[in-house]
Amino acid sequence: MWLHASCSLEFSIPVPTPFLLMLRPRSGWQQWVAKEHYVLSPSVPVVEFTDMFGNLCQRLVAPAGYFTVHTSVDIETAEACDTAPGAPFVEVQQLPDETLPYLYPSRYCESDRFTEMARSITAGRAAGYDQCAAIVEYIRNTVRYAPGMGQQIISASELNQSGFGVCRDMAHLGIACCRALSIPARMVVGYLERLEPMDLHAWFEAYVGGRWYTFDPTQNDLWGGRIAIAFGRDAADVAIYTQFGDPVELLYMSVNVERMVSPPFDSAL
Amino acid sequence: MWLHASCSLEFSIPVPTPFLLMLRPRSGWQQWVAKEHYVLSPSVPVVEFTDMFGNLCQRLVAPAGYFTVHTSVDIETAEACDTAPGAPFVEVQQLPDETLPYLYPSRYCESDRFTEMARSITAGRAAGYDQCAAIVEYIRNTVRYAPGMGQQIISASELNQSGFGVCRDMAHLGIACCRALSIPARMVVGYLERLEPMDLHAWFEAYVGGRWYTFDPTQNDLWGGRIAIAFGRDAADVAIYTQFGDPVELLYMSVNVERMVSPPFDSAL
Amino acid sequence: MWLHASCSLEFSIPVPTPFLLMLRPRSGWQQWVAKEHYVLSPSVPVVEFTDMFGNLCQRLVAPAGYFTVHTSVDIETAEACDTAPGAPFVEVQQLPDETLPYLYPSRYCESDRFTEMARSITAGRAAGYDQCAAIVEYIRNTVRYAPGMGQQIISASELNQSGFGVCRDMAHLGIACCRALSIPARMVVGYLERLEPMDLHAWFEAYVGGRWYTFDPTQNDLWGGRIAIAFGRDAADVAIYTQFGDPVELLYMSVNVERMVSPPFDSAL
Amino acid sequence: MWLHASCSLEFSIPVPTPFLLMLRPRSGWQQWVAKEHYVLSPSVPVVEFTDMFGNLCQRLVAPAGYFTVHTSVDIETAEACDTAPGAPFVEVQQLPDETLPYLYPSRYCESDRFTEMARSITAGRAAGYDQCAAIVEYIRNTVRYAPGMGQQIISASELNQSGFGVCRDMAHLGIACCRALSIPARMVVGYLERLEPMDLHAWFEAYVGGRWYTFDPTQNDLWGGRIAIAFGRDAADVAIYTQFGDPVELLYMSVNVERMVSPPFDSAL
Repeated sequence: MWLHASCSLEFSIPVPTPFLLMLRPRSGWQQWVAKEHYVLSPSVPVVEFTDMFGNLCQRLVAPAGYFTVHTSVDIETAEACDTAPGAPFVEVQQLPDETLPYLYPSRYCESDRFTEMARSITAGRAAGYDQCAAIVEYIRNTVRYAPGMGQQIISASELNQSGFGVCRDMAHLGIACCRALSIPARMVVGYLERLEPMDLHAWFEAYVGGRWYTFDPTQNDLWGGRIAIAFGRDAADVAIYTQFGDPVELLYMSVNVERMVSPPFDSAL
Repeated sequence: MWLHASCSLEFSIPVPTPFLLMLRPRSGWQQWVAKEHYVLSPSVPVVEFTDMFGNLCQRLVAPAGYFTVHTSVDIETAEACDTAPGAPFVEVQQLPDETLPYLYPSRYCESDRFTEMARSITAGRAAGYDQCAAIVEYIRNTVRYAPGMGQQIISASELNQSGFGVCRDMAHLGIACCRALSIPARMVVGYLERLEPMDLHAWFEAYVGGRWYTFDPTQNDLWGGRIAIAFGRDAADVAIYTQFGDPVELLYMSVNVERMVSPPFDSAL
Repeated sequence: MWLHASCSLEFSIPVPTPFLLMLRPRSGWQQWVAKEHYVLSPSVPVVEFTDMFGNLCQRLVAPAGYFTVHTSVDIETAEACDTAPGAPFVEVQQLPDETLPYLYPSRYCESDRFTEMARSITAGRAAGYDQCAAIVEYIRNTVRYAPGMGQQIISASELNQSGFGVCRDMAHLGIACCRALSIPARMVVGYLERLEPMDLHAWFEAYVGGRWYTFDPTQNDLWGGRIAIAFGRDAADVAIYTQFGDPVELLYMSVNVERMVSPPFDSAL
Repeated sequence: MWLHASCSLEFSIPVPTPFLLMLRPRSGWQQWVAKEHYVLSPSVPVVEFTDMFGNLCQRLVAPAGYFTVHTSVDIETAEACDTAPGAPFVEVQQLPDETLPYLYPSRYCESDRFTEMARSITAGRAAGYDQCAAIVEYIRNTVRYAPGMGQQIISASELNQSGFGVCRDMAHLGIACCRALSIPARMVVGYLERLEPMDLHAWFEAYVGGRWYTFDPTQNDLWGGRIAIAFGRDAADVAIYTQFGDPVELLYMSVNVERMVSPPFDSAL
């Protein structure tokens, strides 16, 4: 399926401010970027680099005044997410090296403190995919989605105490529990078609049965229409923008995702 | 300056054929990709990865029949290339690690056999930028540009014997001579505004005075308007397409570069 | 100066258990490994890989029974750590890409919650090295070193509340405060000559004035004699051993560091 | 099996000369380094880095005078090389990304010019391992081993014309033919027990049946006792030492490999 997705940000910048942006989805084995726009206004010099997790990151200094970032993509992605009940746990010694960073505790996923809870939630389930599914089910049943609470990023432990959070926080809890069972788990930030209300979304992936699978504690049906923008250990790694120095004001942010009637055709050629 | 550049390829494919494409320019410190289109027809699954030189590469299997690839970019790039007469040679022990691969001989740049020639060409020049400039001058004065000869890629040694070649071959000779003097040098394939006749272009960069500088043996004036598509040790690393298995026919290829009157504005947002 | 350092671990393993070890110091620009021993008993297959931070990691499955790891190095390292009072803050936009991962909050360094505290501690100090020095001074003056408390790794926030911890915890607080000021800071685990009582040690490095500098909140004099074993964002990245599955018992651990009278000579050759 | 291997080099250096050394075997999935010595005399500052192929490389400036490098390892490696007649060709689209650099032509392996020859040599053989075996057989039958000819590195094409060369040159021809059939192939330089006369050795690996297999055109029996020191595309990537500037004299080089009666025990601990 083809999606057109866009994200616009408008900032009010008091003094020239360094930014790190992460708003360029990459083509990968599950999505293909056929068109992409990335427009900064005013136009400023940008340097792009690839971070430790393979994300394309953009560095720039936003000048004082209004600063807007418009990005959009036409992308092909799957209609439905693969699921694999029964997919087995991969023994740690068999894991590919590149999955290992996703086994360790991280800023918002204190997996070192979730061993007991993860074992209790998944008691009686087959090791692997079914454990992840049990964790997602548990989160769905016990954590209340609280859209207004998303200003401060909270960790798995904090969510566990408070009992309510947003998609990102719920992903943290899912990731922490998976890692506590020695299942590599990583954060994904991206677009999701038909999300209500429309916004950027966060979910997680777990490595079982020899590949990454998608899990989303906030969605009862694991539908497709997903566009990954960035991968990381948790929200600390995948902020779509990070600014340094005195805080700037985000005046406006809009996100839009539409299904395209037909694949893009490059009329400009 | 803003450029709109496009490249279209059309193949006739007898049997399904694996391809590696390298047609996605990256944003870097000298160019910013504001819009990009990459359309395959028919649409096929693609996996993208980053190669050893930092290039984005696309892997796919082209189905039997006609297969077309259309790519285009709106990109900001410099009006003029930086030059730096007198910029000093960087002692090997001071070179950044990432420049070292560009010191060794490679498929088409047999630098191990150019020590004497490089020394003779650059006799009396200050070590560094001025040596590179002398090498480019030498190539411009002694090698005849022979546009029809470009079917087979020839190496620096072969060019040195035959005396005529295309941009790519001349870049090979420049690179081989620089490396023979312990100056890191790398191949660039990309677009060049106002190139006549319009086509993809190849030039090289040498690392002197603490950064990479552009050198182009085919152009008397080192004007800007350049878009780097891929970097590598020589033409073996930067083929815009590589196909495996029985040869397929390239029916058609067109390249276009235009200066944009104004920066792109994302009307689709 | 030349040091001979060794670390021995002995485990009692109930069932075959996957391990990740990080006990191979690398030669770098500040230390040179001239001799190294790494003996596992019983001998088992090991796979080594390089992690995201450049550390050499060893993967193996320890068999049931007693399992010992003996490592030692003869290494050349500096007599004294470089210091640079006045070394300036590096603007974020000028930081090398590879320092950026050390700007973000991590598991045990919740830098996102230390902005006010870091500003207050460093009030009146020049941006850069002097801020780091003020942070270290603050930790030395306010945190009580509590050697018996080191069983559980605690985070910067937790240390800040409790007021006592070990070298690793104090490094976490130093790192969190540096990052809160947009100064890249990373954890180092390694050997330190003359440490009392002898053990592995942890300290941190901050990137100011264009390079990494050593800071050590637990030592009044910043003497040298340091051997870095691993670098990371915090203790979660640099555990010298990580075991998966049911906990195993560490029966014994010993660490030894001695100054060598003369450089090693390879008598075996 | 456990081997003790050593390599000593002695140079006469007229003026301070930058060197790149590649003499530190890495532990990998086929070999485990239990002891290692790396002694430079006189002792000089060294910086170590990891190159594009995963090799550990040492950079230093050798001072004027005599300069010696002594290295040795105690290493566990396989008694016999795995062989896999019938192991299938891996379709290019299924190859792991990290094998792709070994598909392209390189300095000494002009695979782009060996398509016909490779097809002819392997006519009638099953695609994959059996093709590689046929290539090795062909080289063994047609190329004369000429130990005195090893001063200048020659390429696959040059070997094909001259008909005689050393292990390195024969590996080049094997690699070029494999790549011409879209089989990734890479150069290995290392130690081989019982090599006569004892010296460093070169062989190659080809990726078939989902993993790398060892091939050695110079040895009739593919015995084990191999220690890989460096991997690369060809001899240009795996020189155990590269010196820059005016040539220095290698006064002496000795290589020794012995089977150890028992695994190393770290008596120094």
